Amino acid sequence: MTQVKAYAAVSASTPLGPYRIERRGARPDDVEIEILYCGVCHSDLHTARNDWGWTRYPIVPGHEIIGRVTRVGAGVTRFKAGDTVGVGCMVDACGQCPACAAGDEQHCREGATFTYGGADRIDGTQTHGGYSESIVVRQAFVVRVPDTLDPAAAAPLLCAGITTWSPLRNAGVGPGSQVAVVGLGGLGHMAIKLAKALGAEVTLFTRSPGKEADARRLGADHVVLSTDARQMAAAAGSFHLIVDTVPYAHDLNPYIPTLAFRGSLVLVGYLGPLQPELDSMPMVIGGKSVAGSLIGGIPATQELLDFCGAHGIVSDVEVIRMQEINEAYARMLASDVKYRFVIDMASLKAEA
Amino acid sequence: MTQVKAYAAVSASTPLGPYRIERRGARPDDVEIEILYCGVCHSDLHTARNDWGWTRYPIVPGHEIIGRVTRVGAGVTRFKAGDTVGVGCMVDACGQCPACAAGDEQHCREGATFTYGGADRIDGTQTHGGYSESIVVRQAFVVRVPDTLDPAAAAPLLCAGITTWSPLRNAGVGPGSQVAVVGLGGLGHMAIKLAKALGAEVTLFTRSPGKEADARRLGADHVVLSTDARQMAAAAGSFHLIVDTVPYAHDLNPYIPTLAFRGSLVLVGYLGPLQPELDSMPMVIGGKSVAGSLIGGIPATQELLDFCGAHGIVSDVEVIRMQEINEAYARMLASDVKYRFVIDMASLKAEA
Repeated sequence: MTQVKAYAAVSASTPLGPYRIERRGARPDDVEIEILYCGVCHSDLHTARNDWGWTRYPIVPGHEIIGRVTRVGAGVTRFKAGDTVGVGCMVDACGQCPACAAGDEQHCREGATFTYGGADRIDGTQTHGGYSESIVVRQAFVVRVPDTLDPAAAAPLLCAGITTWSPLRNAGVGPGSQVAVVGLGGLGHMAIKLAKALGAEVTLFTRSPGKEADARRLGADHVVLSTDARQMAAAAGSFHLIVDTVPYAHDLNPYIPTLAFRGSLVLVGYLGPLQPELDSMPMVIGGKSVAGSLIGGIPATQELLDFCGAHGIVSDVEVIRMQEINEAYARMLASDVKYRFVIDMASLKAEA
Repeated sequence: MTQVKAYAAVSASTPLGPYRIERRGARPDDVEIEILYCGVCHSDLHTARNDWGWTRYPIVPGHEIIGRVTRVGAGVTRFKAGDTVGVGCMVDACGQCPACAAGDEQHCREGATFTYGGADRIDGTQTHGGYSESIVVRQAFVVRVPDTLDPAAAAPLLCAGITTWSPLRNAGVGPGSQVAVVGLGGLGHMAIKLAKALGAEVTLFTRSPGKEADARRLGADHVVLSTDARQMAAAAGSFHLIVDTVPYAHDLNPYIPTLAFRGSLVLVGYLGPLQPELDSMPMVIGGKSVAGSLIGGIPATQELLDFCGAHGIVSDVEVIRMQEINEAYARMLASDVKYRFVIDMASLKAEA
């Protein structure tokens, strides 16, 4: 056991602050990782504030982790000290069920062990995330990070990246695909970059005319103002896939007619009742679907990192100090970030 | 032009009654068909009563047509006089768009020409359906009916059959698949038969304990009472595909947890607002989807008929006379049919 510095929420209503946690020594299949950077995800904030009702305090958020291997267990074959690695939203799963067998560990029948707020499958202790100096993770849940990528800007690939990569890959997006993205934030800007790099023609749906220039810089071929009925009508029947990244309740019905037949709108940002209610008529008439998608499995995450390495894709990030996390949360709620905060963990190490 | 006997609705509020319509002479690629049997679909009733708001009167319903070829146009190569053939929900489409090229003519970009209530693509006249002595249809929209099948019981394959076949085939259902069917009516009983014949393990969701024996006779391996919370909980995470045949608004939320990860609930019966509203949380967490599906294309319809010929599958039908159609509609609304009415068109020919 080692005591390490971290930032934790101790209740739903208090700001995050310094906190000491214990990290276990490496088991035979464990990798010990010095954390260099950790991205700041909306889920961190939702968990810190118990928006989903399942938080146990204290909690150390953070699941977009980039680090350097410092030590490996005796049975570890895939990593060695000095490697640059990533850890995303999961640190373990049963490994036996149909989902695990399919590389969809996020759908593990027993429930995947999430990077923070989960329970270690061996000793039952609560897992703590990447707002900390170091972490110890089973090698099967550690991914390689190409050396060509800026490690700070690569951090958001571990959640924002894989969350948008999964629906693109599951839909077989490639040259000739028409893909639309709803919302231009941490997830949306990754969806645009990845869809474009996969060869798709990419459209951004937005309510903000001011986002057009940035969307085009990120790779969007078209921008459709979702508040403009004429533009929406002109987009009818266009898209094989819509990746909807909006994190709050919003009306999906205007987007359904813009799907091509057999097209799918995939929700990756919003969890809750679909209000106003979805109309099944255009879904049946057009053979269309509305789906949800949850992050992605470890094989897909490694595939994404390798793809990003080959194509030079990272997130647009604003690097902050650990001590700025509460201000960053406030700015994130105000959509005042282009497009992801990433914590430089040297700032935590420098604390007394 | 030939005047032929038919039964038509002349307004939303009057019963169907005898009516004369004109059928065109065969164009070079047309097949003239003497109608032997025509199934009675909920859509016939919805259209006769203008429930969807698009009916133009008078209208002759009927799109589950089985007949015998009486004459073919000079350019027809695939059919000859005497052949037993079927005509389903469509009689034409553009033939050029991506959907038509994919054999999904029901999603034709220009709009498929439906068997009744459509507009002929050449002369613009309104199409009239199978509640009539004969019909003239382009050969590309005529399918072969295996001689081994009872023609009366085969009629519902042209709509109820293909409507349930499409989601089964699109989901790749086969041995090892877990398929559930919601609702046991004209569509539901076909879904059970077809899923079973494809090799799936089949479950019926029903609110009526009295339907269990019949469901098992049709091929269901399990019956789950959807009103029983314990039975629903036991079914959690089970199904790759749920074919939902219920034709009215109903709560989909209890079924979502019974889907396996990446599973899909496909609506084939209900067109309208999803009330109460669908909750996206279990859809995102489980990577699940809700989709609509509309009949199926001509290649899939032929594939279905050939599959049914090979497996001896037909609908359970109650054969009625044309003159009994209004009573049949009333009984259909009361779910008093096992499981499909089919009109014996000899009864119409015998009218004065």
